[in-house]
Amino acid sequence: MALLTPDRLFPTDPRTRDIARALYQTVAGLPIVSPHGHTDPRWYAENEPFSDPAQLFITPDHYVFRMLFSQGITLESLGVTRADGGRVETDGRTIWRLFAENYHLFRATPSRLWLDHAFETVFGLTTRISAATADDTYDHIADCLTKPDFTPRALFERFNIEVIATTESPLDDLRWHRMIRDSGWHGRVITAYRPDAVIDPEVAGFAQNVERLGALTGEDATTWEGYLLAHRIRRAYFKEFGATSSDHGHATARTENLPQGEAAALFHKALRGTCSAEEADAFRGHMLTEMARMSLEDGLVLQIHPGSFRNHSDPIMATFGRDKGFDIPTRTDYVRALKPLLDAVGLERELTIIVFTLDETTYARELAPLAGVYPALKLGPAWWFHDSPEGMRRFREMTTETAGFYNTVGFNDDTRAFCSIPARHDVARRVDCAYLATLVDTGRLHEDEAFDVAEDLAYRLAKQAYRL
Amino acid sequence: MALLTPDRLFPTDPRTRDIARALYQTVAGLPIVSPHGHTDPRWYAENEPFSDPAQLFITPDHYVFRMLFSQGITLESLGVTRADGGRVETDGRTIWRLFAENYHLFRATPSRLWLDHAFETVFGLTTRISAATADDTYDHIADCLTKPDFTPRALFERFNIEVIATTESPLDDLRWHRMIRDSGWHGRVITAYRPDAVIDPEVAGFAQNVERLGALTGEDATTWEGYLLAHRIRRAYFKEFGATSSDHGHATARTENLPQGEAAALFHKALRGTCSAEEADAFRGHMLTEMARMSLEDGLVLQIHPGSFRNHSDPIMATFGRDKGFDIPTRTDYVRALKPLLDAVGLERELTIIVFTLDETTYARELAPLAGVYPALKLGPAWWFHDSPEGMRRFREMTTETAGFYNTVGFNDDTRAFCSIPARHDVARRVDCAYLATLVDTGRLHEDEAFDVAEDLAYRLAKQAYRL
Amino acid sequence: MALLTPDRLFPTDPRTRDIARALYQTVAGLPIVSPHGHTDPRWYAENEPFSDPAQLFITPDHYVFRMLFSQGITLESLGVTRADGGRVETDGRTIWRLFAENYHLFRATPSRLWLDHAFETVFGLTTRISAATADDTYDHIADCLTKPDFTPRALFERFNIEVIATTESPLDDLRWHRMIRDSGWHGRVITAYRPDAVIDPEVAGFAQNVERLGALTGEDATTWEGYLLAHRIRRAYFKEFGATSSDHGHATARTENLPQGEAAALFHKALRGTCSAEEADAFRGHMLTEMARMSLEDGLVLQIHPGSFRNHSDPIMATFGRDKGFDIPTRTDYVRALKPLLDAVGLERELTIIVFTLDETTYARELAPLAGVYPALKLGPAWWFHDSPEGMRRFREMTTETAGFYNTVGFNDDTRAFCSIPARHDVARRVDCAYLATLVDTGRLHEDEAFDVAEDLAYRLAKQAYRL
Repeated sequence: MALLTPDRLFPTDPRTRDIARALYQTVAGLPIVSPHGHTDPRWYAENEPFSDPAQLFITPDHYVFRMLFSQGITLESLGVTRADGGRVETDGRTIWRLFAENYHLFRATPSRLWLDHAFETVFGLTTRISAATADDTYDHIADCLTKPDFTPRALFERFNIEVIATTESPLDDLRWHRMIRDSGWHGRVITAYRPDAVIDPEVAGFAQNVERLGALTGEDATTWEGYLLAHRIRRAYFKEFGATSSDHGHATARTENLPQGEAAALFHKALRGTCSAEEADAFRGHMLTEMARMSLEDGLVLQIHPGSFRNHSDPIMATFGRDKGFDIPTRTDYVRALKPLLDAVGLERELTIIVFTLDETTYARELAPLAGVYPALKLGPAWWFHDSPEGMRRFREMTTETAGFYNTVGFNDDTRAFCSIPARHDVARRVDCAYLATLVDTGRLHEDEAFDVAEDLAYRLAKQAYRL
Repeated sequence: MALLTPDRLFPTDPRTRDIARALYQTVAGLPIVSPHGHTDPRWYAENEPFSDPAQLFITPDHYVFRMLFSQGITLESLGVTRADGGRVETDGRTIWRLFAENYHLFRATPSRLWLDHAFETVFGLTTRISAATADDTYDHIADCLTKPDFTPRALFERFNIEVIATTESPLDDLRWHRMIRDSGWHGRVITAYRPDAVIDPEVAGFAQNVERLGALTGEDATTWEGYLLAHRIRRAYFKEFGATSSDHGHATARTENLPQGEAAALFHKALRGTCSAEEADAFRGHMLTEMARMSLEDGLVLQIHPGSFRNHSDPIMATFGRDKGFDIPTRTDYVRALKPLLDAVGLERELTIIVFTLDETTYARELAPLAGVYPALKLGPAWWFHDSPEGMRRFREMTTETAGFYNTVGFNDDTRAFCSIPARHDVARRVDCAYLATLVDTGRLHEDEAFDVAEDLAYRLAKQAYRL
Repeated sequence: MALLTPDRLFPTDPRTRDIARALYQTVAGLPIVSPHGHTDPRWYAENEPFSDPAQLFITPDHYVFRMLFSQGITLESLGVTRADGGRVETDGRTIWRLFAENYHLFRATPSRLWLDHAFETVFGLTTRISAATADDTYDHIADCLTKPDFTPRALFERFNIEVIATTESPLDDLRWHRMIRDSGWHGRVITAYRPDAVIDPEVAGFAQNVERLGALTGEDATTWEGYLLAHRIRRAYFKEFGATSSDHGHATARTENLPQGEAAALFHKALRGTCSAEEADAFRGHMLTEMARMSLEDGLVLQIHPGSFRNHSDPIMATFGRDKGFDIPTRTDYVRALKPLLDAVGLERELTIIVFTLDETTYARELAPLAGVYPALKLGPAWWFHDSPEGMRRFREMTTETAGFYNTVGFNDDTRAFCSIPARHDVARRVDCAYLATLVDTGRLHEDEAFDVAEDLAYRLAKQAYRL
């Protein structure tokens, strides 16, 4: 029995399905362009085998462990590290069994699609994960992982990745990227500039981070001018390692364009740790505009990923720390929030600002109307909780009519889960082809145009928008 | 001519429809589990015949009379009681004729589905309600109601209800539930603890209500400790009559976890009637956390039904009083609102909190992400205005990918309209089977799993979640 | 090759498509009732030929030029007038070539549907617009425009327009409407009363506008009583030119029902230009209730079009002025905002208030529940950015179950683009027939009823609701 059906995610109507299949066949084999994600560059640098199936699929994947946790399974039993160093399960097989016994929890989730895709296409499994198959599947995958065909670089090549971006802090020395470059391997792994740690006054250690930024760049980053210059220098350094974009994960979409004196004053309060919450928010918002101005100089694409309430559970934060599946989307306003930035640079045709959302109500109401008129603004694809068949369908249905296809930027997998990359791109290509087929069959798009758009969405737009 | 078509609510594509029909056939005959609703326990206790067709279908059904009122038909002419005792129509036939003449207003509404289902399957009607058929249909139904097969208990059995919960105030003496229990009838009718009258400082007569609570429990409920103890005692009393849940209908989803001294102080202000609106809201929010703590002790499932702006029209409230179809949904925030409760008890695996919403934008953005990680939190089904084919479809499409099926709790009919119960469960079963069939036909769920999930959604999840 | 397919916008399933086609065939030829729009009455009055294809299709159509602008094409190059009188392109052919080269940007947008519909059905084009066909298509359309069959009145008749409403300020002398009336032409072109300029204290020149209103009506409009009387007189004047409605485009849906003294005081502050933003908002809100009271006297239907953040870009506003495609929808609350108005007049059965929204989240949550109970309230159709196949589908799916069909008012084209009128009504009729066919095929509506509703939605409801 196959885990996957060949016509998955296509429309149910046979005629429309035929169109979708024809479209998909032209894009299924295109290389993967992954302009935004969180894979670990160390994998590609060291090219060590992945340790075991649980470490590959369960313990680091917040989609997976949050679902299991929601049904009463402890994080410790899934091997998730505790902040206090408390004991957690380390036996991969034990963790895998727990996962396999509860595999029904993932029914109809994107995680299930991604997992089955990896199990079947990467590891050749044909039996569904379950309590009954737990040991066999564990052994099979564990065995594969010892083989040269399953090292990070071998998988990178098998996945047909043309280029992948990782995400690093300005304080990162990019050693793994340097090692990749120096290794002579031809795989194209680039970095992206994610400066939250030196931009957000509410990050722990903000002032020390700014000092380190200064030390790394040879500037006195504790002055406003030196701080901005240090960013410029560090961005240039990131560009040496292929960066074509910066990325900003703020709690809201707020932007500001403050007079320089006012911005400098906020910066100094931030360094002294005396910013109010409101001032910290204003400073973050202002820095987006500063980053956009730097983008006008150096060409980096500016990405904004707002609207996540991070680390929602105090007890989990206290015991396990950040990024344990407790980031929850919140309502986000863009119309007023982006106005200062857009008034400052929104009409610049040489600038690309890509905005994402976790609030789908903004697709048709705010984001498509904004991206459908401001030359600098483009819409990032359906993100995070919405990186799913229904989420992607809603994205197209709610943005295309106002923003068209050409104010969107193709797909981002945005993942830490390496083996899910081909699956995620495959889902996006299928859902987009299904959408295009429906447009064709309902007379909203000519068939020859649909083939053109299918390739745009699967490949060309990502390269163009991210300047890859 | 039949009123109902056998394939109603199934997908339009023939192949997908076949799958849906196959799934539905396995769940269509399952007993009804109705864990949350508002039928009158007196019906089952006294087992008197329903009085006339208008009293059964029109006058008490706010879905029905609000639609007629929206098109200019007075509430008086529909027999709806005035608060001032003013004259209203009492002749069932006259009311029925008005309803029948305007039956086209219900086209494509869930009321129409429920009404036609009851007319055809309960009363055997095969002609559509209209001015032309008004008298015949009235006579037919009125005649049925005089027969023993149409008493409340006979219908309860015919409807194949395994268990039904009614909703009572802590101040209710549960006499009807006692009468049912003492009658020797085997029908399982249980109560639920709905303490708004003694928790909401803004309810008229709050202080007297608290005093009555004290009198009923033998505690001095005017002290904070006595008040909490009185709740515990009364909850235990409700459990004697089968209660497995409490229910809370607050205006917002706000929760608080105040220090006990602060909560006690608010309580005393509430008794004195000196709470500000903000303080009343904080007190209600805090009491949800207190109720959750009691649930940890006594096992009652905690239900939160927030977000209705009650009695929106001042003139209607003045003339007719509460619950006259003028409750309007409002935008509701859950992420910040539930945080105090979830920080206090959200990780408890023995606790079940079921949250409902009237704001569908929160499904994918807030509720599915929250229920998809907090062990104590589950999602109630599509509610009230959204208890409809499109509403149920949106619920599944917007929650399943993040929360899965097993963080939801099956169906609630939530109704006062007795004859609509089988119809509502039938609609839910059909819509869920249609959704599952689409998942199967688009390769997102294996067919054998779909059969398993169909029974979960139709039957098992409600029993498990409500501990029935 | 045809630009349009005959089954466009119908469901993909063949059986459901057959039903949709059958429904559509009964409404496709019905006359167009256009109760709300922004065509220029001068066209019909003077009946001069349209100047050139670019002036007809590109330069005045904000849907078209905003999309081109979003991809880096300057407004100047599209012939859009600058506020400072700066040079802009005036050669129609040059503008048309730019448009044709970028025609792919409109793929899957409603603009594309409207344009292709006009190109094929009005001008007989059968080749798609592109760089290759730019000159030929320009020449063809330009040639047509010189012929008598393409004058405004000839097109009006060819479009089968039974009645069309334009929109004028109370300060307009209605000279074009007078000229139409005096011309003896039988085409029915009526006006509508749009008093924002004399109601919104934040409009430039508010006080002078009020003085002019006084001069036009012979009243001292600088007193509160005189101001209200002047409105009454001017509304009566508009009724002489066919007006059956007023229209109000406020930033929010706020309404107020202030004591007369308080309203008068705000009015005098507004005249002196000393209103705060909050006071200006309150005054606008109060005037909706005054307008509703006048509607009770004179029968004009009250339309509310709230929720657009106008002229979002400061640089565009500075260079080009208002209405340049930079109006962006915002989140809008109706439940609290409409309460004062609805408490005042919402139960009046002789009053019709039609409310529109740019915030689709309010369809199912707020507007359908409100319109489904208040006799005075009706829902306007999907508006502006949502006047599209997906937008119309969402409108029906999210409003019908709670408000039914008969609390909606048919279609509004709301356009300045004359040749798009038949296309827009055709899209609405097709999408509604597709929706009805799906209801029939899923057992939610009997087939004979669907034919009745199809005509209601395409024709009868607009006439009834707007009293035409």
